[in-house]
Amino acid sequence: MYKIAFDVMGSDNGSLVAIEAASKFIKTKKELYLIFVGDKEQIETSLKKFPIDESRYEILATTEFIDMNGSIMDIRRKKDSSMVKALEALKDNKVDAMITGGNSAAFIAGSHFILGELNGISRPGFMPTLPTAVNNKLTLLLDVGANLEADVEDIIGYAKMANIYSKSVLKIENPSIAQLNIGEEKSKGTLLQKEIYKELEADENINFFGNLESRDILAGKVDIIVTDGYTGNMCLKAFEGASKILMTEIKSQLYKTIFTKLKALTLKKSFNNVSKKFDYKNHSGAILLGVNGIAFKAHGSSDVKSFEATLRMTCDAIENDVLNKIKKELI
Amino acid sequence: MYKIAFDVMGSDNGSLVAIEAASKFIKTKKELYLIFVGDKEQIETSLKKFPIDESRYEILATTEFIDMNGSIMDIRRKKDSSMVKALEALKDNKVDAMITGGNSAAFIAGSHFILGELNGISRPGFMPTLPTAVNNKLTLLLDVGANLEADVEDIIGYAKMANIYSKSVLKIENPSIAQLNIGEEKSKGTLLQKEIYKELEADENINFFGNLESRDILAGKVDIIVTDGYTGNMCLKAFEGASKILMTEIKSQLYKTIFTKLKALTLKKSFNNVSKKFDYKNHSGAILLGVNGIAFKAHGSSDVKSFEATLRMTCDAIENDVLNKIKKELI
Repeated sequence: MYKIAFDVMGSDNGSLVAIEAASKFIKTKKELYLIFVGDKEQIETSLKKFPIDESRYEILATTEFIDMNGSIMDIRRKKDSSMVKALEALKDNKVDAMITGGNSAAFIAGSHFILGELNGISRPGFMPTLPTAVNNKLTLLLDVGANLEADVEDIIGYAKMANIYSKSVLKIENPSIAQLNIGEEKSKGTLLQKEIYKELEADENINFFGNLESRDILAGKVDIIVTDGYTGNMCLKAFEGASKILMTEIKSQLYKTIFTKLKALTLKKSFNNVSKKFDYKNHSGAILLGVNGIAFKAHGSSDVKSFEATLRMTCDAIENDVLNKIKKELI
Repeated sequence: MYKIAFDVMGSDNGSLVAIEAASKFIKTKKELYLIFVGDKEQIETSLKKFPIDESRYEILATTEFIDMNGSIMDIRRKKDSSMVKALEALKDNKVDAMITGGNSAAFIAGSHFILGELNGISRPGFMPTLPTAVNNKLTLLLDVGANLEADVEDIIGYAKMANIYSKSVLKIENPSIAQLNIGEEKSKGTLLQKEIYKELEADENINFFGNLESRDILAGKVDIIVTDGYTGNMCLKAFEGASKILMTEIKSQLYKTIFTKLKALTLKKSFNNVSKKFDYKNHSGAILLGVNGIAFKAHGSSDVKSFEATLRMTCDAIENDVLNKIKKELI
């Protein structure tokens, strides 16, 4: 049996959605024991609607939570918040992992203050698992915003950690790793990127693909893409914006040309499928790689399906002992 | 009458496409005189197919050209290349502007060596005009890759130059200018971005919108977006990649669900319309703002329509005397 502390507060859709996901997911995972962290009354009410066998969970009641508009200072100020309590449970080894759908900035700050970084890692990286144009192929991208700046050691650290993650959790035998850059040639990019290129190329434990341009992030060409948090964040949000605008435009084009309103309704499902496939938010949580604990962030706008996906990813990380494998690699 | 030196070599689709565009466009613009720069035989052959009144053009014959795989060193090595000759014609005031569809890196280097920068500008910016989700609203984005790094002065320079351009060429009365950033709040981003925010906010001649996230670049929220060339380039290519992948996915979803092959053909046009609307390549060239001359780059994969658009933009820039207005502003 293993335990996850699940901070069910602070996400956009409220704790009911988180509990519904947990109630569904736990039936598929016999080894799992959940500690719901948050407002006791809310959790109990939600559990009435979506019951879970009493032997498989407990409630860690808290009086506060950090909302989406909160700041990183809330980690210090709100000592009894669900996010702080879930992180502390992980730090104190009361659980094997934690999940939150709350404020990202607070989560990153809290992980730093409460869990601390692994030896050899000065800046952790936020790593979502992205869908790609190639069926069933996923690509790990990090950092997407835990830290805006990164030096050579940070990026090499991201590559090493993601390499272990991809092997042990995603079962990729020899993951290919690319550096995100403005051009594919070795000579492209900033001085920092040229230096990183050399280091990745020279590392015998890394299957280095070379540079990859942002137009190919979702192309499924590699297993892992490393970059600084500023660039990763910009690109993810650019995808999000492009996706939203294109879908709107295509719908309006199609509807005004050949389709009746009735047919338009039939189309809606197809569009939603595509939106969901390429919206990383609908896939899974992002793990914060490099902190001393398995800490997952579900997207703030998570629905039942995305919380389920985050639970699944978290269990995968625990079952494959990814944290200890990473620690070993970093020594 | 005004003159444009048109380097018709070095783009993906060959000189015929460039000449066809010129032949069509010149009929709409009585004041325009063209100097085709490139291989004499190729140009003459193309002109047989797409004739232009002999009083309205001349050929500046060159023996070399810089191809897409060329390097910036070619600017020094290939003294008789069409790109170098077109830039020299502009420098020597033989023409009012130049256009090339050739190698971007060589064009940027050549503009630096041959035209030089305007007083007060140390790094020019590549500025495409982007389509947006709002009908008939365009957004100027710079820099998209002329220089990877930029300091506060560079970005303020971009804002000032684009401001004049938007007012005089696009006829926007009081253009709103945003800084591209990873978050909208004033406190977001790097130290550099916080400094830029303050300077843009304090500048009385600038209608500062604040920070804008990459997901909103195409949303039509502002008239001008300033950023460093590295970030601008990353975002443009992310849009390109997202667009390609989404369109492919939507097509396959729709075709496999409700459509017969016949209907699929009907749909093709709608998709192409959307692709074209949001592909900046199909819109117009990008001007290199900050060099001493009106120098436009048509995309390397330009078709007839995009070369026509670049010609139109270049004429607009000349007719509105944008270079002198910018020079005046920078003093």
